[in-house]
Amino acid sequence: MASRPIQRLADAFSKLPGVGPRQALRFVFFLLREERTYAAELGDAVRKLHDEVKRCTQCYKTFDVNGPAGSGTAAVAFCEICRDSRRKQHYVLVVEKEVDLQNIEGTGRYDGTYHVLGGTVNPLDSSAPSRLHVRELFSRLERRAADGRLELILGTSATTEGDTTALYLERTLSPLKARFEGFTISRLGRGLTTGTELEYSDEATISSALENRK
Amino acid sequence: MASRPIQRLADAFSKLPGVGPRQALRFVFFLLREERTYAAELGDAVRKLHDEVKRCTQCYKTFDVNGPAGSGTAAVAFCEICRDSRRKQHYVLVVEKEVDLQNIEGTGRYDGTYHVLGGTVNPLDSSAPSRLHVRELFSRLERRAADGRLELILGTSATTEGDTTALYLERTLSPLKARFEGFTISRLGRGLTTGTELEYSDEATISSALENRK
Amino acid sequence: MASRPIQRLADAFSKLPGVGPRQALRFVFFLLREERTYAAELGDAVRKLHDEVKRCTQCYKTFDVNGPAGSGTAAVAFCEICRDSRRKQHYVLVVEKEVDLQNIEGTGRYDGTYHVLGGTVNPLDSSAPSRLHVRELFSRLERRAADGRLELILGTSATTEGDTTALYLERTLSPLKARFEGFTISRLGRGLTTGTELEYSDEATISSALENRK
Amino acid sequence: MASRPIQRLADAFSKLPGVGPRQALRFVFFLLREERTYAAELGDAVRKLHDEVKRCTQCYKTFDVNGPAGSGTAAVAFCEICRDSRRKQHYVLVVEKEVDLQNIEGTGRYDGTYHVLGGTVNPLDSSAPSRLHVRELFSRLERRAADGRLELILGTSATTEGDTTALYLERTLSPLKARFEGFTISRLGRGLTTGTELEYSDEATISSALENRK
Repeated sequence: MASRPIQRLADAFSKLPGVGPRQALRFVFFLLREERTYAAELGDAVRKLHDEVKRCTQCYKTFDVNGPAGSGTAAVAFCEICRDSRRKQHYVLVVEKEVDLQNIEGTGRYDGTYHVLGGTVNPLDSSAPSRLHVRELFSRLERRAADGRLELILGTSATTEGDTTALYLERTLSPLKARFEGFTISRLGRGLTTGTELEYSDEATISSALENRK
Repeated sequence: MASRPIQRLADAFSKLPGVGPRQALRFVFFLLREERTYAAELGDAVRKLHDEVKRCTQCYKTFDVNGPAGSGTAAVAFCEICRDSRRKQHYVLVVEKEVDLQNIEGTGRYDGTYHVLGGTVNPLDSSAPSRLHVRELFSRLERRAADGRLELILGTSATTEGDTTALYLERTLSPLKARFEGFTISRLGRGLTTGTELEYSDEATISSALENRK
Repeated sequence: MASRPIQRLADAFSKLPGVGPRQALRFVFFLLREERTYAAELGDAVRKLHDEVKRCTQCYKTFDVNGPAGSGTAAVAFCEICRDSRRKQHYVLVVEKEVDLQNIEGTGRYDGTYHVLGGTVNPLDSSAPSRLHVRELFSRLERRAADGRLELILGTSATTEGDTTALYLERTLSPLKARFEGFTISRLGRGLTTGTELEYSDEATISSALENRK
Repeated sequence: MASRPIQRLADAFSKLPGVGPRQALRFVFFLLREERTYAAELGDAVRKLHDEVKRCTQCYKTFDVNGPAGSGTAAVAFCEICRDSRRKQHYVLVVEKEVDLQNIEGTGRYDGTYHVLGGTVNPLDSSAPSRLHVRELFSRLERRAADGRLELILGTSATTEGDTTALYLERTLSPLKARFEGFTISRLGRGLTTGTELEYSDEATISSALENRK
């Protein structure tokens, strides 16, 4: 057993996603070998994180309290994307995680807004709808749909969890589709991903790739 | 070192794709442990393969000499797909390997014909065009394009080799595009493959997935 | 579905250890792309294997019927190791598979004889003892032990299956240990394998490595 | 790009061993989703680490300043193992990293002392000897060897780096061997590691396993 302060820190590190007890211990010994300034900086950044970052009350993306969107005032509630008049508010792209949003922004091909779920729907977890702010998404779309055209893009992953979540959202939001003619729901296209060999592709992927050929 | 007949057979096995010397040796010891009938049957099937299988002179797919297309007559030169009047001859889907063709047939969503390249174009290998029957493909498309509408679908993999091959074919066949108005070349659509997480997707895939959303 | 002769051969290939249906199919298309002579040679070598290879009636290793040990006479029953007067008959090293034997011979550090089990003992499989020639091993050791010193080295793998098999043999052969003073049973030493990091080593391995330090 | 405080923390996290920019970003978003208390605790533990942990001036293992060995006094310079009168001071086991030491302690089979190198010798890095406290190790062994029997156990990993380091230490410490008769240097034993299959073992491992059989 490592000494108490080491073990305590390793235990805290091992709660981070994808970090096992062994790697957590390696983090601690790494900190001990490095200069004191590194541990001081890392510790500070971790402690202050929640004070420096705010969550957008419209799309649940995080943003810098002191950044251009934040401007240091506690009153600001919208992130820089939701406040950007050049972003088209009649596109709402639902993503599971904020990293997915970063990845989409990286393409420079999307100029609409987002809704960050912060997870996926698990059929066994009744708290998911409130945790993922589904009611808030419903209200936001309801308000916007009254103004005319509105497209909700389901940008969940092509995994079982992602597909389950997309299905759940489609069902939950179907009343809006019935009420508003200009409201549409779409899903990201399927096809060959860079690196895919046809030999190892499933039928659904090949069918979509054939359909979406261009 | 294993004994001579064992080593000789292991050497022959190790030429098979993806088989290293160790696995090849394991194959031999497996054959020795199994009943003699298995080795007899396997050996027979291997020896007779070339006599029982023919290659279509139009699309280069293999077919059963004694099957419905073959009918046991040596004169037959076309495979069962090329001879099937319900298959649309004005669609030609180029695939790298016959396994890819099997995979596409498995979807039941394609009713055109094929051209089996039997490999990919390697910029350093000047024999590729003749090995892949590119001249024959050119002639086939030229004849068919004179009849009106014709679509060539480049069904190569979404890998560097596949993309290089598709690009090579597009360039080689571009004179036909200039001559025949009804001749088009398309590529399989890109997007999320089953199992893809957005977090780990490249920009090209996300861009295509956005564009092909439905 | 591939055509009949192709599918039939793929089915036969897919019985080989570690070969799935997809790789089996790839083997067949590879044979079709290669020269006919390759298929002819491979097919021949597979068919003749059982006639050219014999199994030693003492240690169950295979040997070349036409080799120096075999000398082309059907009467020879012992392999080249068992017939070699320089090999010490009072060492018998039990291995699971003949490939293990080849690996040990490769070190050039062992000058005793072997017993090839041809598998491991599965507690649920009552046929194992007869399949692994355990009775024959018992008789062989019994005869030899009467002559004086005799060491049985259990060279099974350091896996659960290997350890179970070693334990089973130790129990089965314990009556011989009681009867013959010169008869000993040993196991291969444990310790760090090339490439092992201490950080990822289990306690048993570290304990042995400490004990066997030199 | 993520917002500034998020990116800054992600950059700090990505210095930890085995953490890439993507996982670092995931750590930050995880912290943001969790309760504030978790970030507060983790940040605190990281900041205080260097104050709560000391490095033994004899073996370079870390120890709890406030623990039984530390007793809260700044004066204490030896860790709990070096201060333990039941540990045999005439055994010194050299390990690369403190995690290796924890692993060896876990076996309960070693009752000597340690020397924690804190890394391996890289032939291109001339600072290694001072960084690994090799001079201090030399002096420590020199003092101890004068008292009689002394065994240095080279407990480096069975990797190229570990073997290079062991060789370097053997050479550097050879003058002591010449001067003191009771001083010996040993290495951890090689053999089969739990999980090893004979089929995939290298010759050195098999040779050692044969030699160390018991």
